Amino acid sequence: MSRSCNIGLLATEEVTDISRFIEFADTTTHDFVVAPITKPSFRRVLNQDRTLSQEEHEAWKDQPVFDRQDLLLNSPEWSGKVLGLFSDWIDLDSPSDDIRTCSEIAFKQEADWATHIGLTGTIFPTLGEQVHSTARVLNTVSRTMTPQLCVRVLLTEKNKEENVGWKRWNRLRLLTGHNTRIGVALEVTAELPSSEALLNMWLAEPVRALIVPAHVFVPNQKGFPVLSKRHQNFIKMMMDKMRPDIIVTVPKDPIHPAASPASYNQYMHYLNRNLPEPNEVEKFASGYFDYLQIPLQPLADNLENHTYETFERDPIKYQQYERAVYQALLERVEYQSDVVTTIMVVGAGRGPLVNCCLRAAEKSLRKIHLIALEKNPNAYVTLQNMKAQVWGDKVDLVFADMRTWNPETKCDILVSELLGSFGDNELSPECLDGAQKFLKEGGISIPSSYTTSIAPLASTRIRNSVAAYNDLKNFETPYVVMFQQAYRLAEPEDLWTFYHPNKNIPTVPINNLHNKRDSYAQFVVDHDAVMHGLAGYFDCVLYKDVTISIHPETHSPGMFSWFPIFFPVAQPVEITKDSIVTVHFWRLTDSEKVWYEWSVVVQDKDKQEIYVSPIHNPGGRSYYVSL
Amino acid sequence: MSRSCNIGLLATEEVTDISRFIEFADTTTHDFVVAPITKPSFRRVLNQDRTLSQEEHEAWKDQPVFDRQDLLLNSPEWSGKVLGLFSDWIDLDSPSDDIRTCSEIAFKQEADWATHIGLTGTIFPTLGEQVHSTARVLNTVSRTMTPQLCVRVLLTEKNKEENVGWKRWNRLRLLTGHNTRIGVALEVTAELPSSEALLNMWLAEPVRALIVPAHVFVPNQKGFPVLSKRHQNFIKMMMDKMRPDIIVTVPKDPIHPAASPASYNQYMHYLNRNLPEPNEVEKFASGYFDYLQIPLQPLADNLENHTYETFERDPIKYQQYERAVYQALLERVEYQSDVVTTIMVVGAGRGPLVNCCLRAAEKSLRKIHLIALEKNPNAYVTLQNMKAQVWGDKVDLVFADMRTWNPETKCDILVSELLGSFGDNELSPECLDGAQKFLKEGGISIPSSYTTSIAPLASTRIRNSVAAYNDLKNFETPYVVMFQQAYRLAEPEDLWTFYHPNKNIPTVPINNLHNKRDSYAQFVVDHDAVMHGLAGYFDCVLYKDVTISIHPETHSPGMFSWFPIFFPVAQPVEITKDSIVTVHFWRLTDSEKVWYEWSVVVQDKDKQEIYVSPIHNPGGRSYYVSL
Repeated sequence: MSRSCNIGLLATEEVTDISRFIEFADTTTHDFVVAPITKPSFRRVLNQDRTLSQEEHEAWKDQPVFDRQDLLLNSPEWSGKVLGLFSDWIDLDSPSDDIRTCSEIAFKQEADWATHIGLTGTIFPTLGEQVHSTARVLNTVSRTMTPQLCVRVLLTEKNKEENVGWKRWNRLRLLTGHNTRIGVALEVTAELPSSEALLNMWLAEPVRALIVPAHVFVPNQKGFPVLSKRHQNFIKMMMDKMRPDIIVTVPKDPIHPAASPASYNQYMHYLNRNLPEPNEVEKFASGYFDYLQIPLQPLADNLENHTYETFERDPIKYQQYERAVYQALLERVEYQSDVVTTIMVVGAGRGPLVNCCLRAAEKSLRKIHLIALEKNPNAYVTLQNMKAQVWGDKVDLVFADMRTWNPETKCDILVSELLGSFGDNELSPECLDGAQKFLKEGGISIPSSYTTSIAPLASTRIRNSVAAYNDLKNFETPYVVMFQQAYRLAEPEDLWTFYHPNKNIPTVPINNLHNKRDSYAQFVVDHDAVMHGLAGYFDCVLYKDVTISIHPETHSPGMFSWFPIFFPVAQPVEITKDSIVTVHFWRLTDSEKVWYEWSVVVQDKDKQEIYVSPIHNPGGRSYYVSL
Repeated sequence: MSRSCNIGLLATEEVTDISRFIEFADTTTHDFVVAPITKPSFRRVLNQDRTLSQEEHEAWKDQPVFDRQDLLLNSPEWSGKVLGLFSDWIDLDSPSDDIRTCSEIAFKQEADWATHIGLTGTIFPTLGEQVHSTARVLNTVSRTMTPQLCVRVLLTEKNKEENVGWKRWNRLRLLTGHNTRIGVALEVTAELPSSEALLNMWLAEPVRALIVPAHVFVPNQKGFPVLSKRHQNFIKMMMDKMRPDIIVTVPKDPIHPAASPASYNQYMHYLNRNLPEPNEVEKFASGYFDYLQIPLQPLADNLENHTYETFERDPIKYQQYERAVYQALLERVEYQSDVVTTIMVVGAGRGPLVNCCLRAAEKSLRKIHLIALEKNPNAYVTLQNMKAQVWGDKVDLVFADMRTWNPETKCDILVSELLGSFGDNELSPECLDGAQKFLKEGGISIPSSYTTSIAPLASTRIRNSVAAYNDLKNFETPYVVMFQQAYRLAEPEDLWTFYHPNKNIPTVPINNLHNKRDSYAQFVVDHDAVMHGLAGYFDCVLYKDVTISIHPETHSPGMFSWFPIFFPVAQPVEITKDSIVTVHFWRLTDSEKVWYEWSVVVQDKDKQEIYVSPIHNPGGRSYYVSL
């Protein structure tokens, strides 16, 4: 995905001739302009100065029609080049009944015109303290207009709570029932919020345009306009993750001595060209950002060849497995010993772990006997080819399900790669329960343990994707997602850990009660927020200090095999500053399936319970993993 | 509906022989018994005292089966006579993993058995502090068991917040997503909550049984067990509105000197026989309590004959209309004057208001000229019959829609009955706007004004009825409902008023902008609660001090023509003690229809916004009234 943003010029004083304004913007290398739909004269319809007779005013209210002189964007000719501004005198929450009524009529009239001339986008004026009727009107009108509708929001306001802009936007968004047709045109202000959280949380919002007025710039030593480091970082982050339209202004009277009309725009281009290079994982994930994938069920379904192929390309995972087997061999067997270590790879797929083990044996100069077990008949053909062409006698193949196979001999090391994004969600615990009977007393399982963790997440984009299915089922289903336009409201907390081999499994009768889990995690959220779901991760000990992890704090650099998992909540959860969010999570099982249930409770800072969600996915009704 | 409750006997100590216990209950005139499903010996499955071997315990967990000796209700023979108690040692939220797991298995086993032997109802033990896993298990199991499932809740607990029982129940109910299969068995305690609100709020909950243990009774002077006045009132209210099963106990060692084993039961029968007599409105509404009716649209649809007939029977409404016309005639015209007052009845229906006017004229000895206008062709036939058979020359008939008819002469008094439960919701404002052109300058409209008011309402029963439609549309539709199992969280507040005649209507062009309304009402709720919607009322001035009202504080005694209106909210709203609930309400209109939109905001006692609902029914998408 290109990360290059379009940069437009915002009209800051009256524009009388739109074609000349566009020409000016063009010659100063702006990509588009942002200009009012109507001229100031249109304000007359409010009739606050009584220039209209009562009859004229009533006639307009009844049959609103433009006088062509009132329109600045008076022809479709410009529409590809212009974002339209709604009139700033429109006040849908005015205390005056008449201003409210006339504002609503005028707004609809402008919205209709914007649709008629084919504008692609529009911006509604900055929200005031009252947003109820504004929300009502925008909610309705947005559903019938074609151009995109953004609401202008100030990042900070003087002498107000520092998140006042977000709070007004949030109230509007909640009142509109998360109307996906309404976005944000975020105006960067000279003063930034004190905490990074209050900046980063905008990643979770539908920011379609970033307005950076000239007065936010400071002159550098040579008098050129530049931005503070924090401003730069914020704008670059937004460019990188959200690719908004960037909107600048050119001051009428110079405020930066060396500035030309193109300086502001060029500075933005400069920032846009110098975004951080994507890392390996980001490169791999390109095209998958915020995209909902149904988690694999490799136990119930047989993976396809290209799935194996993709994951075998991971540069880190198999390196770590090799290191783990290597360490285990070194520690178990003396140098130059004749002892042969039996290694079983259970779920060998097309053989990458077999190769890891062979390399580890070679490097460690330890003798091994290698058995590769696979239940997917198609992958098993590849294994046979590998044996015939590469491995020869070094590897014995077994075609069987590890849960039911009864081997003649037991092994010293059991190697598997059965983890999902949530650790146990591809049924590694159940599979290894079955496989550990192959393992000698005192033998080693690689992995030896894995821990599941969660964090509360905000992401309007991901929430909208789930909501688009328009079915409760989808709000009770986890998705594998590479987060981009998302924001963690707190750092992840652990839920539970599985250890292998597990000495506490009752051997007869075999059931799965010991793999149930029931836990909770608590988070303090230190600012107002809306939560859309839970991000899930795993952190796995392969062998002693050799680990693989997708937990944000310990993520194995460059390992791309797992994106995080996302558990939605059916209703976005409102969280006030310093609330405690408690997430209960269950891993449940019956004889045919494993599933998760989850619920969210919010307590305010005085520990008053202000929200209790339903338990999601009761009985696995919407989502389960087949045994 | 009969208000007679069944009264059962609760086992308070170990029952070894269920048939003897039932016989005892029978001879002491109880209707049924409440007894444990299993015997105390079944507790052995927790294996806390290690009476089972590890193997036996694991075998039970894997294949749970009863030993027939463990069952008290060991045959279907008793099922019609027994409510089953789940074992009180079942602890689904125990801190011990093993107790939790075994409790879940044992609970399912008892639930399965209860279904198998065909019990009609069961009671789950009193909720503890932790309810998360209890909620999860009850939520799932309740969906597969046939007997009704109630959770035992204590009205108060010593040294705890006085609404602790409700709070635990509420948390459970929220976690189960308002599972309609789980009810409450409310145990009345010796100590009652301090405020009536904390008692009355139980009307909004699914209380299926009321447990009144013997120790709650006090001895009267003769040593008989009686209840305090507040206890009596609460129990009678619950009997009257909810008809729960009543459950009493008989103490092993007498605690009331003169009590026999039948005393407690007989006292309950005595309370049940002495419920307050239903008033006229309640008698009329019998069979309609908490039943959702779609509001009439008499403007768009023609009412049917039986609808007219029903409403004409109202003993109060027409009396008030007659009084209003009488007052107006007395005040407008001198005694013995020859002045003829022209009265137009607009929307005459089958003629009841015509009769009111004729009676008023007769009583006041004033001369009138009466014109009756009706647009329903079927009702107009009845009017013609009335004219031919009764009224003769006293009344002129006109077949026309009052919004478009152009009369030759104007009238002095315009009489109409166009109100709905929410005042203006049957389009009285729009109709009278059209009709007021018939009215002379200085003429009188009866009614002269009407005011709409709302109050936040809790009612699980009504909420469940709306939710049963399983469609957002129904949560955005108002219903006419006679409330019974419902509770107002605060007294109603006014939203807006319409006045007639309205001097501020622009005459040309005619549109409906002046009939838009945009208002809000605020309520302080002084205890924790859940809100399911809004109750709506009207209060109408017919003429000066002659009024009709369904506002709870001014309800016209005996007037049954209007039940309140109910506006649902899509998500039940959690309200903490001393929260401020702000309800925004809009009456909106376009050229074809009128509709309402509404939203709810909750602020905690520190004015922090903790909940913002979506605006319901945007653009009238789910519900509107046709013009």
